[in-house]
Amino acid sequence: MTNRQLNLNAFIYPTGHHEASWRHPGSVPERLYDVTYFQELARLAESAKLDAVFFADGPALRTEVKYRPDYGLEPITTLVAMATVTTHLGLIATASTTYYEPYNLARLFSSLDHISGGRAAWNIVTTATDAAAANFGYTEHPEVHERYARAREFVDAAIKLWDSWEDDALVLDKAAGVYADPDKIHRIDVEGDYVKVRGPFGSARSPQGRPVLVQAGSSNDGRDFASTYAEAIFTAHQRIEDAQAFYTDIKTRAAAFGRNPDHVKILPGLSPFIGATEAEAKELQREFNELTIVEYGLGQLQKMGRIDVSRLELDEKVPVELFAGAGDITDNDNSRRLVFAKIVEREQPTLRQLLHKLAGARGHNVVAGTPVQIADIIEEWFTNGAADGFNIMPPQYPQGLEAFASQVVPILQERGLFRTEYTGTTLRDHYGLPRPESQYARELAAAGV
Amino acid sequence: MTNRQLNLNAFIYPTGHHEASWRHPGSVPERLYDVTYFQELARLAESAKLDAVFFADGPALRTEVKYRPDYGLEPITTLVAMATVTTHLGLIATASTTYYEPYNLARLFSSLDHISGGRAAWNIVTTATDAAAANFGYTEHPEVHERYARAREFVDAAIKLWDSWEDDALVLDKAAGVYADPDKIHRIDVEGDYVKVRGPFGSARSPQGRPVLVQAGSSNDGRDFASTYAEAIFTAHQRIEDAQAFYTDIKTRAAAFGRNPDHVKILPGLSPFIGATEAEAKELQREFNELTIVEYGLGQLQKMGRIDVSRLELDEKVPVELFAGAGDITDNDNSRRLVFAKIVEREQPTLRQLLHKLAGARGHNVVAGTPVQIADIIEEWFTNGAADGFNIMPPQYPQGLEAFASQVVPILQERGLFRTEYTGTTLRDHYGLPRPESQYARELAAAGV
Repeated sequence: MTNRQLNLNAFIYPTGHHEASWRHPGSVPERLYDVTYFQELARLAESAKLDAVFFADGPALRTEVKYRPDYGLEPITTLVAMATVTTHLGLIATASTTYYEPYNLARLFSSLDHISGGRAAWNIVTTATDAAAANFGYTEHPEVHERYARAREFVDAAIKLWDSWEDDALVLDKAAGVYADPDKIHRIDVEGDYVKVRGPFGSARSPQGRPVLVQAGSSNDGRDFASTYAEAIFTAHQRIEDAQAFYTDIKTRAAAFGRNPDHVKILPGLSPFIGATEAEAKELQREFNELTIVEYGLGQLQKMGRIDVSRLELDEKVPVELFAGAGDITDNDNSRRLVFAKIVEREQPTLRQLLHKLAGARGHNVVAGTPVQIADIIEEWFTNGAADGFNIMPPQYPQGLEAFASQVVPILQERGLFRTEYTGTTLRDHYGLPRPESQYARELAAAGV
Repeated sequence: MTNRQLNLNAFIYPTGHHEASWRHPGSVPERLYDVTYFQELARLAESAKLDAVFFADGPALRTEVKYRPDYGLEPITTLVAMATVTTHLGLIATASTTYYEPYNLARLFSSLDHISGGRAAWNIVTTATDAAAANFGYTEHPEVHERYARAREFVDAAIKLWDSWEDDALVLDKAAGVYADPDKIHRIDVEGDYVKVRGPFGSARSPQGRPVLVQAGSSNDGRDFASTYAEAIFTAHQRIEDAQAFYTDIKTRAAAFGRNPDHVKILPGLSPFIGATEAEAKELQREFNELTIVEYGLGQLQKMGRIDVSRLELDEKVPVELFAGAGDITDNDNSRRLVFAKIVEREQPTLRQLLHKLAGARGHNVVAGTPVQIADIIEEWFTNGAADGFNIMPPQYPQGLEAFASQVVPILQERGLFRTEYTGTTLRDHYGLPRPESQYARELAAAGV
């Protein structure tokens, strides 16, 4: 037994991560705009003592909505509703630095952190789709270096806004008539190339000081960004070797930036089909794959893999040459393409097989097995330098999370790898992250004030 | 008895609308970042069958935070938390067209409307402070015509986004593999001078079709804007004559724009000090005024009234000449200045008296009286073409709302002026507003498709 504990999030996705999950008889696509559906998922995740729930998001409709539910409800508002029915569960929302204003977004996350008593986290994305760009007055999305340059300025400004009020700025002295101490509320005076924000912020410092910062960069720019800012990193790997290489790279980069590598949690995606026997689990996976819509899968492959398979028959092998250049991690829009390329190289699938392989979780690691087999994979990755925990991506909600919570979590708990009770109340507590002091408090202290 | 019913909102303001309310022994400024405080206010408002709660907001810290709590929590997120503990209460949040992006804001309000089951409303403001401008990269706030020009494009785009999915766009046909009908999900292709949004929107149409649109413009531009878009209008008047003139003007303008004047609810602010006797109510008001901080009052007078009183003694009469030009409603930043000017002209107060007069609700109508006297004022304004209802602004929360709910509301109900039970579930139901059809559904129908 080790003291090191897994961090486990439930990655919430409409009716599940399998692209055809909404078509399954047990799924409830009619409840996707009913917030009680998400509140029930939150209660379920908290009953399993998971660290957090996580929502992906983007400011545009994806074109495949004919074939699959899109994001739907906005995540921060949804997480507020989930916060009101839970007490410990972390709440992670995705939001874009390219298409938000720092002041507005910082305020939303600050409120989420206040309302939840310190459970908010922001998954920082730069959004690389032209559909999003077109909703904000651009004809195409900014190129990647520019997106990351803005993201750095944006995050720096957001952190300064959250630090703007020192923790003891609220005085509340009724007799003296002093509500807050203006000397402890600071302008931030950010004058960047992309972002200009004067401050001070409109809200007092939140319970966690700052929401936990999460990122999912896999490219070179993305890894540097993540190693600089992220406290948790979501990543997609099919094999432990790839996950180990990524894990080592990020921890090394973080150390090089002067950070404690333990304060950068690396959480690969894992989408488990769970059965009483391995055969039963694989049968469940096959059942879902039968429901896939070829046209949807081809569109995804084209969009995320950036390859043209329009002249390929479904039962033809996918030529690995289609993925030329996929290994170039200096190309920032390439990360999922690389994951796809490795699958094709290793497994030499037909187009149909590749579509099924990706149907589960868009290139994330899909495994079908017994609860013990799933727990074994988790333990293997966790104890061999490939992961600090996982972003659990159930193929179907709520059934896949129920199965994981009731069948896999107890095994991990028995093995001493996962908490049986929450030991803290904030997401920083769960992740073992320090609560940062306001940089303005530090600066004044350093100046001897 | 008449069938026409009052609309009554509770205008939520940190510890109350009286500027010194936080200093009162009964106030709880330490709970202003505790969402359960606001959830309790929501339950209280709903128990009194009020139409809605309303939050003001702005994307900047006001400079007087030393002397008084500022907005604090972000309103949309706070209203989501309040929605989860209520079932009928309308939820109105203020947000700025100058400092938000239409896509992001439309999504937040759409989610609030979905999450609350059709209770969302947006109080549209254009934000005229340099402090806000400085948080978004500007050195000063855009001039008023430009702000309103952007506001029009912004609201048009937001409406199109909310209309983007026709009401029956969700197909949910598991067998056929059709989640949504792409022919019923529309691009909006807005290409304005200030706002460019392509769409389609990322979320299905919400229960109310569109959130209720609220506005508070009193200037000429503001009145035209409100008469064009607003379904409820907040306004500040001290005397029934002024309120009647405003009421008639807005209803006339709305009719001229081809709208049904009954679908534009005019709701003046009313801040009641309630006592068992009039003397007791006035004593309560005096008690609050005793707690005011002169420096705060002077700052407000200077900022909202746009006058310089720095060379005036507290017990000197305020010269009406200071307000020269206040009657010019073509000047859009002038509306509160005009309210102040009328008070000075009519009452010839000393500076101290003027500060006390404004301390209650920043120029809104403050009345001190018995429950019957308060109900009489409400009835008089309501039945004499001055108001369709009121934005109730209790001097202190929760006490002032408790008093209004338990002592004034029953009188209004007895007089047949106010509901004893909700007759609908959405804010549109409460306000008697139609649920708008999607403009795209209409266009296609008109084209014979």
